[in-house]
Amino acid sequence: MPTLLALDAGGTTTRAVALTSTGDVLGRGHAGPGNPTSAGIKVAVASIGMAIEAASAAVVGPVELAVVAMAGERSEGFVGLVTDRIRALGVRRVVLQHDLLALFCSGSWSADGYALVAGTGTVAARLAGGTLATVVGGRGWLLGDAGGGFWIGRRVARAVVAALDGQGPPTALSALVLPTLGIPPDPSTDAERRTAIAQVVSAVYARRPVALAELAPLAFSRPDDPVARAILVHASRALADLLDAVRVPGLDGPIVVGGSVMVRGMLTAATDLAAHLVPTAAGRSVVPVPDGLVGAAVLALREVGVPVDEPMFARLQTRIIASA
Amino acid sequence: MPTLLALDAGGTTTRAVALTSTGDVLGRGHAGPGNPTSAGIKVAVASIGMAIEAASAAVVGPVELAVVAMAGERSEGFVGLVTDRIRALGVRRVVLQHDLLALFCSGSWSADGYALVAGTGTVAARLAGGTLATVVGGRGWLLGDAGGGFWIGRRVARAVVAALDGQGPPTALSALVLPTLGIPPDPSTDAERRTAIAQVVSAVYARRPVALAELAPLAFSRPDDPVARAILVHASRALADLLDAVRVPGLDGPIVVGGSVMVRGMLTAATDLAAHLVPTAAGRSVVPVPDGLVGAAVLALREVGVPVDEPMFARLQTRIIASA
Repeated sequence: MPTLLALDAGGTTTRAVALTSTGDVLGRGHAGPGNPTSAGIKVAVASIGMAIEAASAAVVGPVELAVVAMAGERSEGFVGLVTDRIRALGVRRVVLQHDLLALFCSGSWSADGYALVAGTGTVAARLAGGTLATVVGGRGWLLGDAGGGFWIGRRVARAVVAALDGQGPPTALSALVLPTLGIPPDPSTDAERRTAIAQVVSAVYARRPVALAELAPLAFSRPDDPVARAILVHASRALADLLDAVRVPGLDGPIVVGGSVMVRGMLTAATDLAAHLVPTAAGRSVVPVPDGLVGAAVLALREVGVPVDEPMFARLQTRIIASA
Repeated sequence: MPTLLALDAGGTTTRAVALTSTGDVLGRGHAGPGNPTSAGIKVAVASIGMAIEAASAAVVGPVELAVVAMAGERSEGFVGLVTDRIRALGVRRVVLQHDLLALFCSGSWSADGYALVAGTGTVAARLAGGTLATVVGGRGWLLGDAGGGFWIGRRVARAVVAALDGQGPPTALSALVLPTLGIPPDPSTDAERRTAIAQVVSAVYARRPVALAELAPLAFSRPDDPVARAILVHASRALADLLDAVRVPGLDGPIVVGGSVMVRGMLTAATDLAAHLVPTAAGRSVVPVPDGLVGAAVLALREVGVPVDEPMFARLQTRIIASA
């Protein structure tokens, strides 16, 4: 019975599980950033190696296969280095998979369907016959990603500036955003408001632009505020448009969704926001998942010829989540 | 007859003229960046000093007054340093003025009216009784500036990516943007298009975000292209909205406009784009100006009690432009 490794190499965390071909978990590992684009090739290779060492500590004998789910472009240099590192740990075969395919397989055993991620950025995919058919989005905050955390956070900052200078309506976001940026809340005179605007502008330009994404949760915390609500409704429509961009008539299957804006924001803080996605779903289920780790396990089993049907999928989900 | 100095201290160039109180030009000076926010206090003070030295080389005796037009917040530290530097050059009195007030006075001798600037960013002001009554915009590329060079350039880049991945219509902008970013034009296969997208994304994120403004002139160069045209129409409407934000009923006077997007773009490349501003103008004239130097001279004359009427304004414009 071959031992398998499943990895989700993300921008902030790398997760690994060792499992049998019957879906039993043998060990788990965690490490730092595993994405070579954002963390650099050396850090990513080291994280992936550390997560595998921890997950396979209790494994006796060789490992048949490691499936590594990760985002972005992969240079030949990175593929060579990470493959060598994993093989040096006693793994016979290494397969790199797209993180969107793994994310989808974390939520469904179906061969067809859709994946939609809204974290700092946004990306959507159509899956057909167990592979990625189309990917749209994922170009980063400068070139797209409408509805993602940066997009929402930038609008939150602009709404607060507009409220301060009288170009927009007052908003409950002001009392949240100003302290978050280290600025005294509740400016009451015109002079205090002008000072607060100058401080917001200074604080925003002093940080990395993408740090504006940190303001997105503030909008989800006040769905009762008309200004926050308008931003979130606009965002949820942008995400529905993104899903429409990958949709084709006649392709059935679930919509698996991930990313903090989607899972912790759209689907929980204000459930009616998810309604914008439901017409798109047209009777299909919307399945939130935390990451692509279960999906990497699904892909590893299929890679060695083990079919993953509903009972096997349920077992993987339960055991991998239970061992977390 | 007192000698006066007028300065326009801009982000890339500092211009100075020495003039008599009858509007005759005695000398001119040029120097580098004079804006303390973007160039730093030391560089700005040095540029202003050098421009004054050049402009007053032929001046005999003391200078009564220097008016310095400049953008942005001024720290007490900067004001002290620049005042000391100018006084050390034999100038009795120093007055710092807002660049939008000087820009308006470069285009009109009226005490009332509007100023609208669209360069990399955008800002608008209402002028009443010879002073700035309201300023809206000018928050930079992260927090606003719809219709400015960054805003247009970002949409140009996104339109090219959309054309390459089939999410948007083909556009003549592709053949201009790809070579500008150092990427081979005319990818013909799906694989070549995917490579080109990855190269656009890499090139854009490798530069400073605000460098996207450099793509704006490409849109103005192809007003016949429907994609470029839609971006420019959207931009000109955003600029009309900005002007509306400072407009009040009953305040007459011209609309003085500046900035490369406005003067070299909207008003020249495709004259019908300016039509979006004309309903806003409602019979008032739209006056393009290159900078705030004439306006700084107008403000200097008024500061020493010389009224600037239509003949005096025409004399200043002619002499300052003739001596350029």
